[in-house]
Amino acid sequence: MKGMSGQPIPAEILKLRRSIDNIDAALVHMLAERFRMTQRVGEIKAEDGLPPADPARDQQQIARLVAIATEAGLDPAFAEAFRAFVVAEVIRHHELIAADYAVGVRAEKPPPLDTFA
Amino acid sequence: MKGMSGQPIPAEILKLRRSIDNIDAALVHMLAERFRMTQRVGEIKAEDGLPPADPARDQQQIARLVAIATEAGLDPAFAEAFRAFVVAEVIRHHELIAADYAVGVRAEKPPPLDTFA
Repeated sequence: MKGMSGQPIPAEILKLRRSIDNIDAALVHMLAERFRMTQRVGEIKAEDGLPPADPARDQQQIARLVAIATEAGLDPAFAEAFRAFVVAEVIRHHELIAADYAVGVRAEKPPPLDTFA
Repeated sequence: MKGMSGQPIPAEILKLRRSIDNIDAALVHMLAERFRMTQRVGEIKAEDGLPPADPARDQQQIARLVAIATEAGLDPAFAEAFRAFVVAEVIRHHELIAADYAVGVRAEKPPPLDTFA
């Protein structure tokens, strides 16, 4: 196997890439599950008229994830940027759900999550 | 427990947040492991004079992750953005490693000149 430069890709890189691919599959599956949970949070917030964002929760999450990242050997600044990246998408979803509620697109009581599968 | 708006946070949200926190801890640990692997990839690339980025690998990763995301119920556009976010950090690390090699911080012999391009 050769890279763009025409040089063959070392066997150790190809082996590492197979492990990286496994980790990426796990990351995508866990992110899918995380968004299923935050989707439900967004529905409850819309029902109860709670704001999509929650700065107090943000601060708790940041402190916790920075501690976990430091312990795990991940750059805490990257962990924080990663959290912000994911939460920005979550807030976008929550705003869409709240907008749907505002115009009556969604039911007062949404069906359980499994129904959306 | 109350949110910023002064309204109490529904028990179901608090329960979901505990699961989200567990998923986040797993995500951070897997990202830490992923960067350990890409760090080693960066070292091999610098040793062998391979470029930090690999567009062919990028295309394979994107196609694979979009398929996995679709199957898992995650927005494929988000999966692609997530991959780009992580890979941008990986490339930054690879460039730092290559620069270290170039000035002899890590290796006895510097990599070939085309690594600087």
